[in-house]
Amino acid sequence: MRPRSTFIRLALAVGALCALATLAHAQEPDAPATIESVKSSVDMVQWTLNNLWVMLAGCLVFIMHLGFATLESGLTRSKNTVNILFKNTMIVCIGLLTYALIGFHMMYPGDFNGFFSLGDIGAFITINPGDAAAVQANLTPDYNPGYTWYTDFFFQAMFAATAATIVSGAVAGRIKLSTFLVFATIFVGISYPITGSWVWGGGFLKEMGFYDFAGSTLVHSVGGWGALVMAIILGPRLGKYTPHGDVRPIFGHNLPLATIGVFLLWFGWFGFNGGSVLSADAAAVSLVLVTTSLAAAAGGIAAALVSWIHGGKPDHTMALNGLLAGLVGITAGADQMAIWESVAIGAIAGIIVYFAVITIDQKLKIDDPVGAVSVHLCCGIWGTLAVGIFGQKAGMDQLIHQLIGVGAIGAFTVVFTLILGFALKSTMGLRVHEKEELQGLDIGEHGQEAYAGFQIFSNQ
Amino acid sequence: MRPRSTFIRLALAVGALCALATLAHAQEPDAPATIESVKSSVDMVQWTLNNLWVMLAGCLVFIMHLGFATLESGLTRSKNTVNILFKNTMIVCIGLLTYALIGFHMMYPGDFNGFFSLGDIGAFITINPGDAAAVQANLTPDYNPGYTWYTDFFFQAMFAATAATIVSGAVAGRIKLSTFLVFATIFVGISYPITGSWVWGGGFLKEMGFYDFAGSTLVHSVGGWGALVMAIILGPRLGKYTPHGDVRPIFGHNLPLATIGVFLLWFGWFGFNGGSVLSADAAAVSLVLVTTSLAAAAGGIAAALVSWIHGGKPDHTMALNGLLAGLVGITAGADQMAIWESVAIGAIAGIIVYFAVITIDQKLKIDDPVGAVSVHLCCGIWGTLAVGIFGQKAGMDQLIHQLIGVGAIGAFTVVFTLILGFALKSTMGLRVHEKEELQGLDIGEHGQEAYAGFQIFSNQ
Amino acid sequence: MRPRSTFIRLALAVGALCALATLAHAQEPDAPATIESVKSSVDMVQWTLNNLWVMLAGCLVFIMHLGFATLESGLTRSKNTVNILFKNTMIVCIGLLTYALIGFHMMYPGDFNGFFSLGDIGAFITINPGDAAAVQANLTPDYNPGYTWYTDFFFQAMFAATAATIVSGAVAGRIKLSTFLVFATIFVGISYPITGSWVWGGGFLKEMGFYDFAGSTLVHSVGGWGALVMAIILGPRLGKYTPHGDVRPIFGHNLPLATIGVFLLWFGWFGFNGGSVLSADAAAVSLVLVTTSLAAAAGGIAAALVSWIHGGKPDHTMALNGLLAGLVGITAGADQMAIWESVAIGAIAGIIVYFAVITIDQKLKIDDPVGAVSVHLCCGIWGTLAVGIFGQKAGMDQLIHQLIGVGAIGAFTVVFTLILGFALKSTMGLRVHEKEELQGLDIGEHGQEAYAGFQIFSNQ
Repeated sequence: MRPRSTFIRLALAVGALCALATLAHAQEPDAPATIESVKSSVDMVQWTLNNLWVMLAGCLVFIMHLGFATLESGLTRSKNTVNILFKNTMIVCIGLLTYALIGFHMMYPGDFNGFFSLGDIGAFITINPGDAAAVQANLTPDYNPGYTWYTDFFFQAMFAATAATIVSGAVAGRIKLSTFLVFATIFVGISYPITGSWVWGGGFLKEMGFYDFAGSTLVHSVGGWGALVMAIILGPRLGKYTPHGDVRPIFGHNLPLATIGVFLLWFGWFGFNGGSVLSADAAAVSLVLVTTSLAAAAGGIAAALVSWIHGGKPDHTMALNGLLAGLVGITAGADQMAIWESVAIGAIAGIIVYFAVITIDQKLKIDDPVGAVSVHLCCGIWGTLAVGIFGQKAGMDQLIHQLIGVGAIGAFTVVFTLILGFALKSTMGLRVHEKEELQGLDIGEHGQEAYAGFQIFSNQ
Repeated sequence: MRPRSTFIRLALAVGALCALATLAHAQEPDAPATIESVKSSVDMVQWTLNNLWVMLAGCLVFIMHLGFATLESGLTRSKNTVNILFKNTMIVCIGLLTYALIGFHMMYPGDFNGFFSLGDIGAFITINPGDAAAVQANLTPDYNPGYTWYTDFFFQAMFAATAATIVSGAVAGRIKLSTFLVFATIFVGISYPITGSWVWGGGFLKEMGFYDFAGSTLVHSVGGWGALVMAIILGPRLGKYTPHGDVRPIFGHNLPLATIGVFLLWFGWFGFNGGSVLSADAAAVSLVLVTTSLAAAAGGIAAALVSWIHGGKPDHTMALNGLLAGLVGITAGADQMAIWESVAIGAIAGIIVYFAVITIDQKLKIDDPVGAVSVHLCCGIWGTLAVGIFGQKAGMDQLIHQLIGVGAIGAFTVVFTLILGFALKSTMGLRVHEKEELQGLDIGEHGQEAYAGFQIFSNQ
Repeated sequence: MRPRSTFIRLALAVGALCALATLAHAQEPDAPATIESVKSSVDMVQWTLNNLWVMLAGCLVFIMHLGFATLESGLTRSKNTVNILFKNTMIVCIGLLTYALIGFHMMYPGDFNGFFSLGDIGAFITINPGDAAAVQANLTPDYNPGYTWYTDFFFQAMFAATAATIVSGAVAGRIKLSTFLVFATIFVGISYPITGSWVWGGGFLKEMGFYDFAGSTLVHSVGGWGALVMAIILGPRLGKYTPHGDVRPIFGHNLPLATIGVFLLWFGWFGFNGGSVLSADAAAVSLVLVTTSLAAAAGGIAAALVSWIHGGKPDHTMALNGLLAGLVGITAGADQMAIWESVAIGAIAGIIVYFAVITIDQKLKIDDPVGAVSVHLCCGIWGTLAVGIFGQKAGMDQLIHQLIGVGAIGAFTVVFTLILGFALKSTMGLRVHEKEELQGLDIGEHGQEAYAGFQIFSNQ
């Protein structure tokens, strides 16, 4: 234990020195201030401010996980609710720890020593306490003008778990819990950081010119591809499609819960997109908050209107998915768009998601209980391509780069998920027993009910 | 598409320059720092910090919409839940887009060219990309020492939708969905910004000396007047009042949901009031957070105690409404009050709301399912007048100014809503069919249930 | 009323001067900037930034109260839901007002005049308006380099209510409402600030070397001791233990609600621990956010795994409690630990909570409906001792200091709660009537149901 002391003492001393530099001056009124000392204080305050925004953005991204948990459980049946809540709780925990152990290093190898090898596993968690210079550098603007090493990890780790959460919705109600947890660990720990490193880690797609501001592709379509592949391998829930080819709708059991989920996701998205500026740059962050908001609004209204016109009545679930579609759609180019372009991208995403849900559910007969593929894959691709169509990067070259990026990351994720999915199928098994599925996974996997003792005393 | 590129490139270049000015210096250690360059960096950091707080406050105000959605659906019957959730989701979307198209310009004409004409519609959304000087000015402290143009819009647009949301609660359970959406669009797009411009836009009430810090009148009583007028025009829900004049209470179906709503509203109110400082000014913001919190606390306790003493048992719904009453009450003068004054204002608001609910529901027989008129209108007026009674502006002159402001804005909003309400009644129709109302608007308007497939396996 | 005007005018003038100092310079381009004026501006921006973070942290701690309200009501039966929601709403209100009246002064006597006497009651609420110098000092960095007087109060008051909330969970379903409210007022107003002053107020435990960064002991184990004593005095809920010694599990009625609660608690904990840095110090805050997150993750996974291995199936409620256990455990040393140490502390807390729940519920037969004692007391102690075992302060001396602090604060709180509990028992009475308990406290205490009119139209 003792050597660790030195490390921490050093780290804290450095941290204290940094942020209190300014105040230290104030507290020594006799020390003469020089232009250099004042300039250095200003730089430190700006850096502290950048850190603060990225840390707060990480907190906002964290709350998206509650959004996913409530959205998914609200849109599915009550007999699988505990199972979904447990899965979503575990994914955050697993995601954070896995990312600390391996993903952070694998995705941003440049932050360590430029590449990743098996020997680097755990490098973030067990940084060599004796390496004082490295520790100091990690906690000052020398590491990055926008954040400390810890801020960096905090923000990126909150992102990482998102991809696996997206898969969770598509496989709800039938996947074995243990299998899913192993899947999520490997998906977050290996697949997501590898494709992530191709762009955000400074890899070949970045060098080619592919642009994905906050992850329409790197997060959402990656999760969406995983969702699509796993939903196909698993097959539909019992009773979803009759032998005669009829489609039976299975409704969500708690739409207030689902609505809470979507609002929390929107709330968290301010951090997801706004924090991806990676500094407190007021012009850029405020533009991103506006484009993000208006794309969400346009997506929600577009999907509601299309469901009203095409389906006869305005569908609340569709409005919620349209809103998310707008958010996913703007994510790749939230910092690149004029206001009207963000509205257009969101509205188109809202229309896409409506027809995608119908096509996947009724034509392709892929059972995706919460519409994860429609929202995250279809609109993730749309948003990524939109960077080549709208905004400051628009142009045929950019569009081709975007297509290549979508294709490369999609191909890798599909192949990875196929191999992983079939490997798990042939070892642990993928689906719960038919009896358990009918009874619900809450009793089968957890021996718990979501609403035990829920009593209704009077009905008006 | 191409000309847009120039605009965005410029905007981002400016933004990047601004926020990174400081760091740029740091990265060129050889460039000699001058007092002027350092001072300029400090100014920029302060401006970035102001922006950050106002943007975060906007995020907090956003989450109030989830608060309204859950409060309203929790306080009404389960058969109208999807309808309420849908309406509240749509209001945010409509509010943001309408405010971008027309409201922002109409409410703050000075930010554009001093007045508003039909030709200005869409000025925020479609700003002339060729006007490089205007774009640059909008993203620097030249626009405002507290925020960029986008930050300004983001914060104000989140406010705007609130007024219509307040109406939503009072008309729940019987208004036609399509009519309500048209009403909300016009109310947010035209009525709210007109009266808003009289004060926050620098109009005649501002010049007279009327003071409304964060909107007890401009937001809450405006919404409350709309709620009152529409509730009267619509008439009560079927079965609420018997032909013999008896009053039948209709209980909320989900008090945990309503409680979530009130806590989220309180949470968001830190941004609503705190952000209305319009900068990160630590002395002012921290005072506002304290007065806001203590007024809410006093309102909640006062209403709970009054219901306990007067009604025999402590009523949780009343405590929740008392808490909101305290928040609405302190909003007009949150930056003007000593600590004990904020407690007094909140406590009086909590007492007002209790008797207002009883009077409106049982004496006046106006059916306001969630008590929106009592909370937002009665306590909005109280809070506005309290600025003339308590705090640094207290005095007979101020009280008269407050009365004039309350009267002028109330008169306009009542007339506007009456005309709009009757116009909609004679064209689209206001109420759903009797059969639909009895069955619930969820099935009637949406063909969806809030709790389809909600199963309770065991009862203890 | 009039003298108050002077006070507020002064306070606001000072505030405005402070935060706008920088901009004022900018607006007078002709005034020559000196090194001293620029340095002073930088100091002010840093101070404003520190304030902003601590204020935001206070907002995050506020939302923990919604987390407690939903967690407690979700983990108990629906017949007591209104009662729990009401209690938790009132505790926040009472906590804030009581802390303003007496607790703040009692806990931080040094911020006033060094000690506390009965004559000081209300000193925060009714500060002498004529004392212009004191007011000015309270709103500038002279008060504290991290915050204004109001920011200080706001953050600390949000903490204070937490301790009583913890007790609320342990006594749910059987305590008389009026008695509990009196208990909570006295516990928050007197017991919590006294033990708090021993450490954070600069008292004897602080001087001895006891360390409790954000309150594993000062907040959580204090609440936990209160919970333990009151649960024992009250006795178990009817039917919990049969005359033959059998233990009957009583399940929570709404696990989605409980899950919302735990995620909101985690979210708020970023402010609870992160804000306890008491400045925006980027190195320290970012380290704290990472240790807090990873301890929670490790605790959640550890408890889930232990319940899976030991109990046969992964228990979602246990995973939630494990997550909270990790958070409580890291709280005492969140700024002291290396990354791997935070993981270890969290994982051990997750294991502790599992066996503590089983021991307390089944061996000791103390009925603690939500596991408050296991989470807050057991893991609060563990986290406090961990400061002597892990991290930069590790060592036998420190461990002994930690043990002394745990013992002293525990002894005081137990004695205080015993006296208070028996005093209340012999005066107001502690338990509701047996009939009321069976019927549920919602009807008995409030005449309200949580889910009145909750209708389920179809079951799939």
